[in-house]
Amino acid sequence: MQDEPVPVFFLSDSTGISAETMGNALLIQFPDLRFERRLIPFISTEEEARKVVAILDEAMDGPVTPLAFTTAATDEIRKVLLTSRCPIIDFFELHMQRVESILGASGARVAARLHGVGDIQRYNSRMQAIEYAIEHDDGQSLRALDRADVILVAPSRCGKTPTTMYLALQHGLFVANYPLIEDDLETTDLPRPIAHLGERCFGLIATPGRLSEVRQQRRPNSTYASLEQCTKELRRADALYRTHGIPVINSTTRSVEEMSTLILQTLGTRPSKERGRP
Amino acid sequence: MQDEPVPVFFLSDSTGISAETMGNALLIQFPDLRFERRLIPFISTEEEARKVVAILDEAMDGPVTPLAFTTAATDEIRKVLLTSRCPIIDFFELHMQRVESILGASGARVAARLHGVGDIQRYNSRMQAIEYAIEHDDGQSLRALDRADVILVAPSRCGKTPTTMYLALQHGLFVANYPLIEDDLETTDLPRPIAHLGERCFGLIATPGRLSEVRQQRRPNSTYASLEQCTKELRRADALYRTHGIPVINSTTRSVEEMSTLILQTLGTRPSKERGRP
Repeated sequence: MQDEPVPVFFLSDSTGISAETMGNALLIQFPDLRFERRLIPFISTEEEARKVVAILDEAMDGPVTPLAFTTAATDEIRKVLLTSRCPIIDFFELHMQRVESILGASGARVAARLHGVGDIQRYNSRMQAIEYAIEHDDGQSLRALDRADVILVAPSRCGKTPTTMYLALQHGLFVANYPLIEDDLETTDLPRPIAHLGERCFGLIATPGRLSEVRQQRRPNSTYASLEQCTKELRRADALYRTHGIPVINSTTRSVEEMSTLILQTLGTRPSKERGRP
Repeated sequence: MQDEPVPVFFLSDSTGISAETMGNALLIQFPDLRFERRLIPFISTEEEARKVVAILDEAMDGPVTPLAFTTAATDEIRKVLLTSRCPIIDFFELHMQRVESILGASGARVAARLHGVGDIQRYNSRMQAIEYAIEHDDGQSLRALDRADVILVAPSRCGKTPTTMYLALQHGLFVANYPLIEDDLETTDLPRPIAHLGERCFGLIATPGRLSEVRQQRRPNSTYASLEQCTKELRRADALYRTHGIPVINSTTRSVEEMSTLILQTLGTRPSKERGRP
């Protein structure tokens, strides 16, 4: 375990999201090192690139050798960046050449312009999905549950809300969530509002110890947060899911991204249902 | 322009989010080609990897040569995948060797386990940010605006809600948004609830034509959606922002990710304020 953190730079002529995502996928393989991350996005002129080189070179004079990741697509920007003394992992150039040769076509090699609100179709469907998610968060509204692509069912604090928002925002899915309260858990029947929608449901559980810890932070020393209460709710929720063949996902061992991927994967294997959307 | 789409596979022993993000960053450089994308995540055994190889090899017999991107970190999985006849862009192996040599340490080379709800601190802060965003969406609640890291101000349909959710979900920021209605736009004063919070505000605008199109889809042929009304609201909003030195972002030319990155960048250059959070 080293004490000084390694300075890490993510450089891009666009948002830098790809550089960050891919760079972090590599860095996560070094759990014993500490990193001090800095994102420098939207590098759009050679002059800006030269300023970045100055920052990198300054970091080279520090106690720990820094590391930079870049996804700059424009040749002029990349050429300037590569004049730095700092080691740079270039996710673009090498792979771009290979992709060009496989596809038999030349890449544009321009800074990626993601679609703005200008892409009205995509913007509207994303907006509708987010608005739907907000309206149906935590069973607030039971209107239009029929329009849901996915209904997340779980006891309180098992991760319904962030997973709902992630699926809406990243994938444009209509996701409702339904909180299982004690009354719902007295039998293994599906609660009435979702009784006819079992095939769109996904059940979330957690491990009792973790759920109790999460709830403690919300209402310390309450019955609600007690290990006994958490254990009971989780056992009953699990029984309810299994009775109805509802897929179960454990949110203690899965991140929001992993849960979302599992749900998408399961949806992909199901016969596509007719959606109630306009 | 070629007619048949190119089959593209994103392969991973984890969620595949890095493979998708990085792969798409390359594919976006080929706007004239069409791609048929398929994500195959969580490849966790050699047997599963062999099944994937069968899928890839089948695609090789189709009319268009397919292309695969992989971020598999486990050597055994990657070795099996690379036995396919399909061209595979491996984002991991090559860069991993380089990163190991720069860092002077060996990477774990295991499938990335993202943090689940098990990482309670991170989970709770993310949850709080999302709950805060939902509570303060579209000026629904003016409670606790003082706790906001960022307040997005804009006329209706300029992209406040998705940007709010993105910042909350991906960056754990407390983001409120405040809709400028006609009454607010009669003067260039900041509306009373946010009058003392100008330095946390970001103003969104759009181009009138696009805003009108977006509003048309919501309320066709209304005054609300008319080009005249949109032009007026946008001009007045812009004047209001400029009067108070509020940074302005155009959501027609910027994606949600780009707007979020710009906001983070601006926050990074400001003297950090004392946050009202617990």
